[in-house]
Amino acid sequence: MFSLYLIKRLLALIRRYTNKAGGYMPLTALALNCSLKGSAEKSSTDKILNEVLQELAKYDVTSEVIRVVDYNIKPGVKSDEGEGDDWPHLRAKVLAADILIFGSPIWLGQPSSVAKRILERMDAFLGETDDKQRMPPYGKVAVVAIVGNEDGAHHCHAEIFQALNDVGYTIAPGAGTYWVGQAMASTDYKYLKSPYDKTLQTNRTSAANAMHLAKLLKANPYEGL
Amino acid sequence: MFSLYLIKRLLALIRRYTNKAGGYMPLTALALNCSLKGSAEKSSTDKILNEVLQELAKYDVTSEVIRVVDYNIKPGVKSDEGEGDDWPHLRAKVLAADILIFGSPIWLGQPSSVAKRILERMDAFLGETDDKQRMPPYGKVAVVAIVGNEDGAHHCHAEIFQALNDVGYTIAPGAGTYWVGQAMASTDYKYLKSPYDKTLQTNRTSAANAMHLAKLLKANPYEGL
Amino acid sequence: MFSLYLIKRLLALIRRYTNKAGGYMPLTALALNCSLKGSAEKSSTDKILNEVLQELAKYDVTSEVIRVVDYNIKPGVKSDEGEGDDWPHLRAKVLAADILIFGSPIWLGQPSSVAKRILERMDAFLGETDDKQRMPPYGKVAVVAIVGNEDGAHHCHAEIFQALNDVGYTIAPGAGTYWVGQAMASTDYKYLKSPYDKTLQTNRTSAANAMHLAKLLKANPYEGL
Amino acid sequence: MFSLYLIKRLLALIRRYTNKAGGYMPLTALALNCSLKGSAEKSSTDKILNEVLQELAKYDVTSEVIRVVDYNIKPGVKSDEGEGDDWPHLRAKVLAADILIFGSPIWLGQPSSVAKRILERMDAFLGETDDKQRMPPYGKVAVVAIVGNEDGAHHCHAEIFQALNDVGYTIAPGAGTYWVGQAMASTDYKYLKSPYDKTLQTNRTSAANAMHLAKLLKANPYEGL
Repeated sequence: MFSLYLIKRLLALIRRYTNKAGGYMPLTALALNCSLKGSAEKSSTDKILNEVLQELAKYDVTSEVIRVVDYNIKPGVKSDEGEGDDWPHLRAKVLAADILIFGSPIWLGQPSSVAKRILERMDAFLGETDDKQRMPPYGKVAVVAIVGNEDGAHHCHAEIFQALNDVGYTIAPGAGTYWVGQAMASTDYKYLKSPYDKTLQTNRTSAANAMHLAKLLKANPYEGL
Repeated sequence: MFSLYLIKRLLALIRRYTNKAGGYMPLTALALNCSLKGSAEKSSTDKILNEVLQELAKYDVTSEVIRVVDYNIKPGVKSDEGEGDDWPHLRAKVLAADILIFGSPIWLGQPSSVAKRILERMDAFLGETDDKQRMPPYGKVAVVAIVGNEDGAHHCHAEIFQALNDVGYTIAPGAGTYWVGQAMASTDYKYLKSPYDKTLQTNRTSAANAMHLAKLLKANPYEGL
Repeated sequence: MFSLYLIKRLLALIRRYTNKAGGYMPLTALALNCSLKGSAEKSSTDKILNEVLQELAKYDVTSEVIRVVDYNIKPGVKSDEGEGDDWPHLRAKVLAADILIFGSPIWLGQPSSVAKRILERMDAFLGETDDKQRMPPYGKVAVVAIVGNEDGAHHCHAEIFQALNDVGYTIAPGAGTYWVGQAMASTDYKYLKSPYDKTLQTNRTSAANAMHLAKLLKANPYEGL
Repeated sequence: MFSLYLIKRLLALIRRYTNKAGGYMPLTALALNCSLKGSAEKSSTDKILNEVLQELAKYDVTSEVIRVVDYNIKPGVKSDEGEGDDWPHLRAKVLAADILIFGSPIWLGQPSSVAKRILERMDAFLGETDDKQRMPPYGKVAVVAIVGNEDGAHHCHAEIFQALNDVGYTIAPGAGTYWVGQAMASTDYKYLKSPYDKTLQTNRTSAANAMHLAKLLKANPYEGL
């Protein structure tokens, strides 16, 4: 026999899976492109982000891509650094999305300064817990997409996973997708002549797992302390 | 109205939450202590691991702690490195647990060689996917517990999160718990005279979130590709 | 007997150790403070940088501290990113100094976005080699000074050492100095009530070794390929 | 006019550059191969180590390669961990060499467990300072050679640079050499059909700079505190 507890949880699940009209609630994704180049320029990071978003679209996930460097993200660790700060606007978009796709190029084997700026601003989440000690991104799922001419993707994954996890994101298996060339190579992902199967496969895996996990957590939020 | 799809999933959920006798299926945890010292010696890593397990026990999670260095984990990246290799035995325990608590001391700001040995052996999971491209740890949740006299915990979290995620683990928010002393200090966690509240609070958070996520994923496995 | 080669080198050494008037050539240091706060605010990074510079001053090393965030360091990987870019000005100061003291606060266990911006701009050095394949910072010595409320210094050292080494800097033993508090602590270095002996000792070591090495390399430049 | 101090230093330099018979003192290098495979097996790490040693040989540097996993390097952080420990033997070789070539394969984007074991044993150097606070490797120069099927070299450089620097090694520009394939590729360096120019060029640079620096430091030891 089922416990009362389990029945309650199932009912909660049914409620959460449906909106007021009884329909299925689709998921949304936000992709942050932490390229050093503004949106006037073609970006390899954009290419991989769009590939991941296309995979998510197969699961009816709707999405938007933000070119972060187009905005004035002021230095600091507060959620609003005052006049001219565009972070409050981006922050609202970040927290409205069920899935965050965090995209960064590699420079000197490491994530971009633009990526680090975003992570610093997310540091504020540590102090913005609710009465159950839950930070704002609790229940949201992160994917990290990295591109570079060469070496550095795993390290970028490691640093960004740790930072995003510290501020409340959940990370599904295979959440790190990437493309890099051979050691010291100089080709850009955006100029690859043919699709690179291994990256496309990893995009699929990261999208499928992120979607599955985001859906579960939306229906069953962390309960906190 | 609910779709047929949703009803099927709810029925699957009910089946998975229950065993044949209709009872609730409790979760299990395995803690790997990657200390450089054998079990004859007192270990600071053991202390934090046991604290996390006590938190998990509040949710009826049963557990075991393994002192890895007591075993002969041969160098290599296969699941069985032949005669005398104790990894196949530990590997079975790792894969039987719903939650993995990965514990490492810090040396020179980095995880121990024993921790790295375990991660290398888990590299084999990359090639052990099922017909839906799922690695053996899919659906299992990892917590990383780090102690050191001083500085290095975030980096250990980053490296271990990335490696465990690469081989199929899911990571709940706040999955990194730790204690370190002030810069260049020499006190061990095991000799702290009084409990350190901030670490205890982080233990609670990581346990609560890991339990919630492991339960969800056990009932709702990743579907793979 | 000494070889002609050795005699030539000794004469070169004597010439380099002296200026035209026959006097001793003193060394210079530049400290980059990669705090997120402008120079109107008190900075913990400033405190440790000044401590290191005081140690260098004992060896007659003259110095300057730059608060990087006061300047407009545009995103990019070229030595001049065009109108409004302050990097060309800072770059000239960086390359005029024999010793670089690279100072960064820790956020989420990692170097600041301001630190990463500087490293990205130094990426251009990779393409600015002379006819013997030597990058502009060849012969210059780096010290890395890190402060944070808590954990992250070793990782910051690692990332910054690697990036600076990639672009041509030499690193003397014990080049990483730092202060951090206990796990999850919130005290700032600038508010410590009494001097912290271990950090002061590390400052002394890093200064003594950097000075020794910078002097040697100024007198005996890398010969390149 | 030259100061008495400078004359004394020059005389010391002359003495150090020569042995008792008045001849030039050649440098020595030790290469540690931290492969997971014993010396019965062909190793990609061996290939790059030998390439670096060939470059050093052009400067009359004599050398030896050690396959670390052939030895029993016991877990621990003391210079002698007792019966059966082979580290004291390797430690003597390490400290007899002017240049250390630290070679590691990449697994999951990170250095091998064998590499980490060596670094842990070197932790003991922190406590083995002389009366001027100099650790045993003061004056010795490190090169880090990394190979992997794919991504991870910069991170391995970063971690190993930091650890070796912490225990007293000096790092010349471009000290990190490496080869990796494209993202998720599976070819081994040892099976590359043709030499890879960029890695060979980096080998040359790292050898030339390490040799130059080791020679300088042998003639002009760090003076300590």
